[in-house]
Amino acid sequence: MFYEKLEWRYATKAMDANRVVPSEKIERIIEAARKAPTSSGLQPFEMVLVTNPEVRAELSEAAFGQQQLVDGTAVLVFAAWDNYTDARIDDFVNLTGEVRGGVTEALTAYYDRLKGMYLPRDARTNFEHAARQAYIALGFALMAAAEEGVDATPMEGLDPAKFDEILGLGAKGLKTVVILTIGYRDEAKDWLAPLPKVRKSRDQIVTDVK
Amino acid sequence: MFYEKLEWRYATKAMDANRVVPSEKIERIIEAARKAPTSSGLQPFEMVLVTNPEVRAELSEAAFGQQQLVDGTAVLVFAAWDNYTDARIDDFVNLTGEVRGGVTEALTAYYDRLKGMYLPRDARTNFEHAARQAYIALGFALMAAAEEGVDATPMEGLDPAKFDEILGLGAKGLKTVVILTIGYRDEAKDWLAPLPKVRKSRDQIVTDVK
Repeated sequence: MFYEKLEWRYATKAMDANRVVPSEKIERIIEAARKAPTSSGLQPFEMVLVTNPEVRAELSEAAFGQQQLVDGTAVLVFAAWDNYTDARIDDFVNLTGEVRGGVTEALTAYYDRLKGMYLPRDARTNFEHAARQAYIALGFALMAAAEEGVDATPMEGLDPAKFDEILGLGAKGLKTVVILTIGYRDEAKDWLAPLPKVRKSRDQIVTDVK
Repeated sequence: MFYEKLEWRYATKAMDANRVVPSEKIERIIEAARKAPTSSGLQPFEMVLVTNPEVRAELSEAAFGQQQLVDGTAVLVFAAWDNYTDARIDDFVNLTGEVRGGVTEALTAYYDRLKGMYLPRDARTNFEHAARQAYIALGFALMAAAEEGVDATPMEGLDPAKFDEILGLGAKGLKTVVILTIGYRDEAKDWLAPLPKVRKSRDQIVTDVK
């Protein structure tokens, strides 16, 4: 059941190096992230799926030696656009035209207004906005992993600039914001596995305005 | 099926004012958001669940008159911490101690290191970091809504300062980052309902490092 899966998942600290997640499962996790909604539909981020063991070892070093990157099956890197640009927005307008049978005037007008708002803003504001959208997709990927019975640990404890360098992201105008290591838990080795989840109560985190 | 629900959901533009989402469903959507993971577990955001029609009308005005806020059943406001503070982090350490049978030295040491990193940073950097965490929860809420067969539209097109004022969030050190309107689609009135989803292809959004 959906809600039991939410309870089952946790930020796995020790992955089982002897178990490999089937690629179909990884692809469905990616599919969920790809389907996630984003502001005005722009999908202002890309993902890098790293299965190569040498590259994962390098990335692990750039993530304070965290072992899940090495012992898991894959590292999914979320990298946000460093800025909004005319060309990036045009690409999306054209894609929409392809999918929906033509670029309409209303479509162009909407994204022209958006350009008018985004393009004059400083790069940092735009990057932060793009980064937030990547986190919606991260949420979708996390839930899809739980659905697949696959462990997935979201991680920010890393040097984004080193990740960008290792993966050649700078040249693409992308900046690493968060990663998801994908694998299977090694319960015997994981200190966190037996501990209960810590979450604020419903009333600690929600205010009702009835 | 899980993946069909991803396809079923969309950013509903017209909600049916005559259909009310049962509160159990709304509570399960909130439960998913509450269970979402966040960086170091801090849950650095709160939610405001607005069902009151007058308040929703006010919020709609502060969201360029978007009608979903009024025609839906509820507006779920995600408001991130304006900054990390000693007290906020201590609260979480104490909650962890309650849930896991005591505040250990390792726990205190971890969060002391975190304070050393977060507290000297400028408020904007910390707020942006907190905002990203709220977007993971937004992702969980969106998927839970789809699971419930409930429509949910994530919205950023609003005046955050006005939302903060209407909901009294400033005094709590919170800033509105995104909202989710919850209701049922009115397909006949929704121009977006019949249009296919626009998403980049798998290979447009993912690079493989094998």
